[in-house]
Amino acid sequence: MFESAELGHTIDKERYDKEVPELRHKLLEAQYELVKKADFPVVMIIAGVDGAGKGETVNLLNEWMDPRHLATNAIRPLGEEPSGRPQMWRFWRALPPKGHIALFVGSWYSIPLVERVHGDMKRGEFDERVEEIKHFEHMLADEGTLVLKFWLHLSKNGQKKRFKELSKKKKTAWRVSDTDWKHLAMYKQFQTVSEHLLRETSTAEAPWHVVEGADERYRNLTIGNQILRALRARLDQKAKPVAPVRAPSRIEAIDGVTILDRLDLEKKVESKDKYNDELAELQGRLNLLSRRRKFEDISVVSVFEGSDAAGKGGAIRRVTQALDARKYDVIPIAAPTDEEKSRPYLWRFWRSLPQRGRIAIFDRSWYGRVLVERVENFCSEPDWMRAYGEINDFEEQLFKNRMVVVKCWLQITKDEQLRRFKEREQTPYKEHKITDDDWRNREKWDAYKVAVNEMIDRTSTEWAPWTLVEANDKYFARLKVLRTLADAIERVL
Amino acid sequence: MFESAELGHTIDKERYDKEVPELRHKLLEAQYELVKKADFPVVMIIAGVDGAGKGETVNLLNEWMDPRHLATNAIRPLGEEPSGRPQMWRFWRALPPKGHIALFVGSWYSIPLVERVHGDMKRGEFDERVEEIKHFEHMLADEGTLVLKFWLHLSKNGQKKRFKELSKKKKTAWRVSDTDWKHLAMYKQFQTVSEHLLRETSTAEAPWHVVEGADERYRNLTIGNQILRALRARLDQKAKPVAPVRAPSRIEAIDGVTILDRLDLEKKVESKDKYNDELAELQGRLNLLSRRRKFEDISVVSVFEGSDAAGKGGAIRRVTQALDARKYDVIPIAAPTDEEKSRPYLWRFWRSLPQRGRIAIFDRSWYGRVLVERVENFCSEPDWMRAYGEINDFEEQLFKNRMVVVKCWLQITKDEQLRRFKEREQTPYKEHKITDDDWRNREKWDAYKVAVNEMIDRTSTEWAPWTLVEANDKYFARLKVLRTLADAIERVL
Repeated sequence: MFESAELGHTIDKERYDKEVPELRHKLLEAQYELVKKADFPVVMIIAGVDGAGKGETVNLLNEWMDPRHLATNAIRPLGEEPSGRPQMWRFWRALPPKGHIALFVGSWYSIPLVERVHGDMKRGEFDERVEEIKHFEHMLADEGTLVLKFWLHLSKNGQKKRFKELSKKKKTAWRVSDTDWKHLAMYKQFQTVSEHLLRETSTAEAPWHVVEGADERYRNLTIGNQILRALRARLDQKAKPVAPVRAPSRIEAIDGVTILDRLDLEKKVESKDKYNDELAELQGRLNLLSRRRKFEDISVVSVFEGSDAAGKGGAIRRVTQALDARKYDVIPIAAPTDEEKSRPYLWRFWRSLPQRGRIAIFDRSWYGRVLVERVENFCSEPDWMRAYGEINDFEEQLFKNRMVVVKCWLQITKDEQLRRFKEREQTPYKEHKITDDDWRNREKWDAYKVAVNEMIDRTSTEWAPWTLVEANDKYFARLKVLRTLADAIERVL
Repeated sequence: MFESAELGHTIDKERYDKEVPELRHKLLEAQYELVKKADFPVVMIIAGVDGAGKGETVNLLNEWMDPRHLATNAIRPLGEEPSGRPQMWRFWRALPPKGHIALFVGSWYSIPLVERVHGDMKRGEFDERVEEIKHFEHMLADEGTLVLKFWLHLSKNGQKKRFKELSKKKKTAWRVSDTDWKHLAMYKQFQTVSEHLLRETSTAEAPWHVVEGADERYRNLTIGNQILRALRARLDQKAKPVAPVRAPSRIEAIDGVTILDRLDLEKKVESKDKYNDELAELQGRLNLLSRRRKFEDISVVSVFEGSDAAGKGGAIRRVTQALDARKYDVIPIAAPTDEEKSRPYLWRFWRSLPQRGRIAIFDRSWYGRVLVERVENFCSEPDWMRAYGEINDFEEQLFKNRMVVVKCWLQITKDEQLRRFKEREQTPYKEHKITDDDWRNREKWDAYKVAVNEMIDRTSTEWAPWTLVEANDKYFARLKVLRTLADAIERVL
């Protein structure tokens, strides 16, 4: 990867002075067009060896472009988030909206690189991380993000020379730290690991640009030109991308039988007394679990999905009743805001991940992508098809990070739904709970059944299984939800 | 993955008898359209648990469709190819041309699944294999192949019932083997591993279809309908796929300096005597290496690329002179044949991989994809961009399989090329060596330089590094080639 970045590339002052004004003008022009169109976001990584000019490049880009639409993220890599969120959380938070550029110095590459070089990360885990990075960047690209990755390179001698130069002058000596000299001594190891890392992650959708860092003018012009070229290519794109038709992939049984049809929806609790007894017992159990010492070391992500009027709200209330109000958040998911719409669809859920010792209760969730968005054609088939894998990746990251993922699907019969809709219309204080949307959704009952069936097939994993809740009897449903949650938490404590 | 395939799906005889004739008619119609258009090939995998009807499905498809354009490959998985080729070789060989369908019973999934279940494959290696499979199928899809994967499923009880039924009747008892009963005892392990394997490899471009296998009519109708739907979707596709514009990814230095410019092309051998001495010595060394006992346990893949008239042919002759004619094959690569054009571009090279104890000498190679095909726009930028990764994957498989990959790029100056072109025109027996193409390529000298520079940057790997050969002096070039080859072979013996 580095062969052509050790050739001693240079640009003379005359050419530099001549080309820079024009380049800056065009860069700004492109940036304003990006802001105005707000069609896609840009994620830019500036990485590379110490002393090759990462800091200078960031400063330069902030000078050449309009920093109001360019966010610089100097994110220090951490082995573990103190808040207990997955490692990718800080990067997800910093993802730019459409029309904006986010510049990352220090990125999802930092930890695997440094830990692997120092031998703190085994080969197997490193390979796993590389795959995760590829999946992440693939998702970004699929969601329309322009991903630009620059690696500033210096040969070992070049790095040494640079450190010596900087050390000599009072004004710049502070820029060379002890760590820098230590890294120089490990140049070979850094070189080997980063070459491997770069080659593996140099994909068609997010290739690395290796830039020789020794000559400042060469470096600046190269990076400026590459950014301009990438922006222009995207901005000037005429043809709308068309995905190739692939194998139609829906899981849809020709006899019309889905997993939901095999549920015994008539299951019920014998009596109200029995319900009250069990409810109290389960709520007590859940409360005690949430107060255990070890609970502070995990967090819980619970997801409630279900047919309209299946009783999600009621079930959630029985859960929250059991908990200290400081322990949980209920996150109702409605149509996405503008903020959310202009980022990858999982962004809003990353935002709401709980800290350690807390329970997040999602009233509807990321599964909207493969339910309402699929059924209503809010996204294309390739989009919801790739969502299964993206969701599994997401939940796997939660699981690996000691988050308990509990997913409940509440199901009622079509008749029962009708009964409840009518009841809602006739009960004054329930009136607000029934809208035209609900009636419209009801017409798509069968399409939803197919979507739910496929969702359960493709996203019920070892680390985050679905629980199907028979919900014609509200009491039965609530008890099952509480029991599922308590059992799942107990298993990890 | 299997939730919706344990629901006891059935289709009654009446519906089956009514729908089958129509389905068969439409399937045949689609197949003939596929043959006639010859736009894309179809790869179909029939996998699943024993007793779920894999064999019956293959027979059925051969009956329902025209077997002249449907090749059935019952490839027994092998831990290692006796010929020493990589494990994927037998599957590459069986890839269908455009317009044809290849049916695989036993596929690239068999070995990882079985070995993992029996604990003969560690988790790390299994994960690596899963990634290889994903890359392979991604490549197939990118090359236009329609990939259809069916997994026939039975619950544990279903499998037991089925084995008992078959065993009872004389006519079918032979179908249940001891291995089948053994596998039944390991049902849980098979289930766990295959669920994981299927989920990981159920990608947007090649998703699995899980089909409940218990009811024959349900199974047949489901598979038939899915195939029909997939074929029709592709055949009826109106819009030509347009790849989204991604970050332009070319490595192209703004000062115009490439790796080739830093070569000292004036290097030469002092005298003809010196050349003759060294030549004899190196050829002798190579010959001895090829006769070592351990040489029978490896194979060598050597690649010769270079500017026109750089002396590839002469260098290759000096290599073959040193070898027993039974030990090597020279594979000259010209424009692809029709046979080759209708398959993924790497197919022709897989065909020519050497057996153990042999040396394959490629006179030009798969690198044509990122050289001539790039420069002449024979393929699109996204196509040659993904080729770097595909080529690295390919060479890594060779390396892992104890194949020594040696790649030489022969470079001359533009002046020296002119001198040689003119000499060729004026020497009667060399006249055939110079064509209009050569003159045309010469006009694209700079574009080739950029392409070679990027090729070396992106495909010089630990396991298959490039050697740049300064070739203005033919003697020098030949000796360097021989030395490179001998050194590389010696290192592994």
